[in-house]
Amino acid sequence: MPGVAQELAEAIGAEQVVTDPEIMEGMAHDEAEWAPYGRPAAVVRPRHTEDVAALVRVCAGAGVPVVARGAGTGLSGGANAVDGWVVVSFERMDRVLEVDPVQQTVTVQPGVVNAHLRERVAQDGLWYPPDPASAPWSTIGGNVATNAGGLCCVKYGVTRDYVLGMEAVMGSGEVVRLGRRTAKGVTGYDLAGLMVGSEGTLGLVTEVTLRLVPLRTGVEHTVVGYFDSLIDAGRAVAAVSAAGIVPSALELIDRFCLQAVDEWKNMGLSAEGEVLLLARSDLPGAAGEQEADQIQACFEGEGAVYAVRSTDQEEAEALFEARRLAYPALERLGPLLTEDVCVPKGSVPEMLGRIEQAARRFDTHIGNIAHAGDGNLHPLFIVPAGDAEAKKRAQEAFEVIVDEALELGGTVTGEHGVGLLKMPGAARELGPQVLQMHRALKQALDPAGVFNPGKVF
Amino acid sequence: MPGVAQELAEAIGAEQVVTDPEIMEGMAHDEAEWAPYGRPAAVVRPRHTEDVAALVRVCAGAGVPVVARGAGTGLSGGANAVDGWVVVSFERMDRVLEVDPVQQTVTVQPGVVNAHLRERVAQDGLWYPPDPASAPWSTIGGNVATNAGGLCCVKYGVTRDYVLGMEAVMGSGEVVRLGRRTAKGVTGYDLAGLMVGSEGTLGLVTEVTLRLVPLRTGVEHTVVGYFDSLIDAGRAVAAVSAAGIVPSALELIDRFCLQAVDEWKNMGLSAEGEVLLLARSDLPGAAGEQEADQIQACFEGEGAVYAVRSTDQEEAEALFEARRLAYPALERLGPLLTEDVCVPKGSVPEMLGRIEQAARRFDTHIGNIAHAGDGNLHPLFIVPAGDAEAKKRAQEAFEVIVDEALELGGTVTGEHGVGLLKMPGAARELGPQVLQMHRALKQALDPAGVFNPGKVF
Repeated sequence: MPGVAQELAEAIGAEQVVTDPEIMEGMAHDEAEWAPYGRPAAVVRPRHTEDVAALVRVCAGAGVPVVARGAGTGLSGGANAVDGWVVVSFERMDRVLEVDPVQQTVTVQPGVVNAHLRERVAQDGLWYPPDPASAPWSTIGGNVATNAGGLCCVKYGVTRDYVLGMEAVMGSGEVVRLGRRTAKGVTGYDLAGLMVGSEGTLGLVTEVTLRLVPLRTGVEHTVVGYFDSLIDAGRAVAAVSAAGIVPSALELIDRFCLQAVDEWKNMGLSAEGEVLLLARSDLPGAAGEQEADQIQACFEGEGAVYAVRSTDQEEAEALFEARRLAYPALERLGPLLTEDVCVPKGSVPEMLGRIEQAARRFDTHIGNIAHAGDGNLHPLFIVPAGDAEAKKRAQEAFEVIVDEALELGGTVTGEHGVGLLKMPGAARELGPQVLQMHRALKQALDPAGVFNPGKVF
Repeated sequence: MPGVAQELAEAIGAEQVVTDPEIMEGMAHDEAEWAPYGRPAAVVRPRHTEDVAALVRVCAGAGVPVVARGAGTGLSGGANAVDGWVVVSFERMDRVLEVDPVQQTVTVQPGVVNAHLRERVAQDGLWYPPDPASAPWSTIGGNVATNAGGLCCVKYGVTRDYVLGMEAVMGSGEVVRLGRRTAKGVTGYDLAGLMVGSEGTLGLVTEVTLRLVPLRTGVEHTVVGYFDSLIDAGRAVAAVSAAGIVPSALELIDRFCLQAVDEWKNMGLSAEGEVLLLARSDLPGAAGEQEADQIQACFEGEGAVYAVRSTDQEEAEALFEARRLAYPALERLGPLLTEDVCVPKGSVPEMLGRIEQAARRFDTHIGNIAHAGDGNLHPLFIVPAGDAEAKKRAQEAFEVIVDEALELGGTVTGEHGVGLLKMPGAARELGPQVLQMHRALKQALDPAGVFNPGKVF
């Protein structure tokens, strides 16, 4: 064992420390296939908060950075190790510690899987809305690190909107409690909120208290709309928002992605046009039907070739499932790079048009899925394995799309985080003065630079 | 003019600088009558962001702290000046700069009054939910500084949930843009969120972009419940939450406060019991009626002496108006001190019982109003003017109530901010390590200590 691994084994027990190169290789990176990663000195699998505190003290003392890891479903390289670092895998800290049905909160360890949490709280009639497409695998710790979004966010908000408080291990190994358990609270700075989306650069979260809402029990109404072009679909999205409608989901998936899912899963999906919009209303009773009708009217008003209120619940579910499976389906076709730009809703048609232009200009194939109702677009770049020229063109298109999004008042990353892949764009978005604030803040809270240095900024 | 006032007059024009002692006296403090304040060196009334940047540079250079001021409706002393400080009043930066009906955002200057903002965006069919009882007077800048709450928060969240981005002047006078305009965004640390609730200790906000939602147009159903005791009313609150009901308001007001309003405004309010709970449902159609019925059943199930669905819209509105007027009504009776503790919803009955005990133990009169549905309680201490003994007893009771709230897993301040009055309690709540994080963060972002030093922590 190299030095730091040996020290860790002595501090928290050899059983928690992995140095097998083969196992480490699989845990040294997330799913951002285009991001670099190195060979960690060790992977640690702590069982308790005290283990985490101890390992941070060892690493800070040894001057070895640590990078946290949930399920490794990240798409920006935020969980990627550098040579000689220590990877902290939270797979064993996966317990739901407490559900409080009156306060409507749940307290969990960071390694609990999003979908498991949802199943558990549903037993008490409660619902945790944030639902990244990775929900069946991704962990709450990872969701907190990236402020994960998902399909529900257009109506129900993102991870930060549900994090009330947390326990975390900070830079000198001290364990602190940040935030609160109450519905409201303004005692001091919002340090819990600051930790959310900080991608493991400020500390390690060892426990989270999440706000829940009552489980939805009513019928959801699905509206399906097919369009001849991305721009038409984008106009329909803007029309829904301009009409003051807040659907419970408003997703976009193009024919290319739909077919990739169908070829993989044989779901019998038929593409009646180039682009599919999938909307839902969960308003109770007649209000839900009325909202679905309004959405359908918006689709038709913007030139949908086919728009219908789906009466077939199973078919509707299959289409949403296809949306969730689009990313893994495309991953099968070659190294995949995904954007995560988010633009103002009124700019969605313009931005989709610019994405098409970038694809043509750089001769690169771009598939499109989107949390369209949020203006959060996921252009997906697929290039033939080993084609360095194609990869270079895709990377150029990637940066151009980032710049276009910024020009339209948008942001580089809506929900995936900056990680490694979006650092150049993030620097352009934030500008030198705000970057300097980031450095000052990081220095203040992690003076030894032990937490995931060199990521984000 | 003393030195710094002269320097300010030269930098941004004498017309913007006030040194008249009488005018300054009225602007040197907020409405926290029990908090100390001093004599500022000058009050500055900037017209533009550049003025704010210039005044910060002057003050940083001269080593003179600045404290920001909106309408001065704060209840914790956060806007109070110390001898020789500069007060920055945002009364002239009160414009609504842009409403975007498609993105559903509004961009405003900090001096715009909450109610004016609501009126303006209503013209576009939009709604800004956070509604502190001070909404007719308080400004968005002040609301952002304290992360203000209000009656709607039980369902619609607090100020932070609506702040997307901002322009701010930081410690060396540089102007930065923090946050975003898009629905989602995770580029870097949530610095905009960090500014919210920081009570003017990190920088001066000069522009804010707020998220809006569609204006509610349906009928609201009001449920009125009278109870014989605070504890019964508290149990009804917990029962509503446990039933998975999220009302659009759930307020508590006791007979003492109700009578104080009635004596002032002659509203013809009748108190049918010791404590009144006021609930609302804004769900559309039959769902709203059903929810109101469920709330009524919860009230009756916990021993309401009288519970009814109000069919008289005017009477219902009068009761909510009385709730909003309770604080100013009690202010007329003598120097007023208000708590702002927030506890988990299930602990509301227990906490209300402990407040009653504290009143008895310290022989002090405590009136009670509460955003009960959030567990956010506002015990109000009124003592005869000039009675130093009574004041001391009230202050002791105040601290005991803070400790009781902390013991029940609560927080010192739900929505008013720490300011000066809650600093001892905040220190107990946060603990030494988290306080140290606050100091490190303040030092990182405001190294010269120019922004409201000595407040909050």
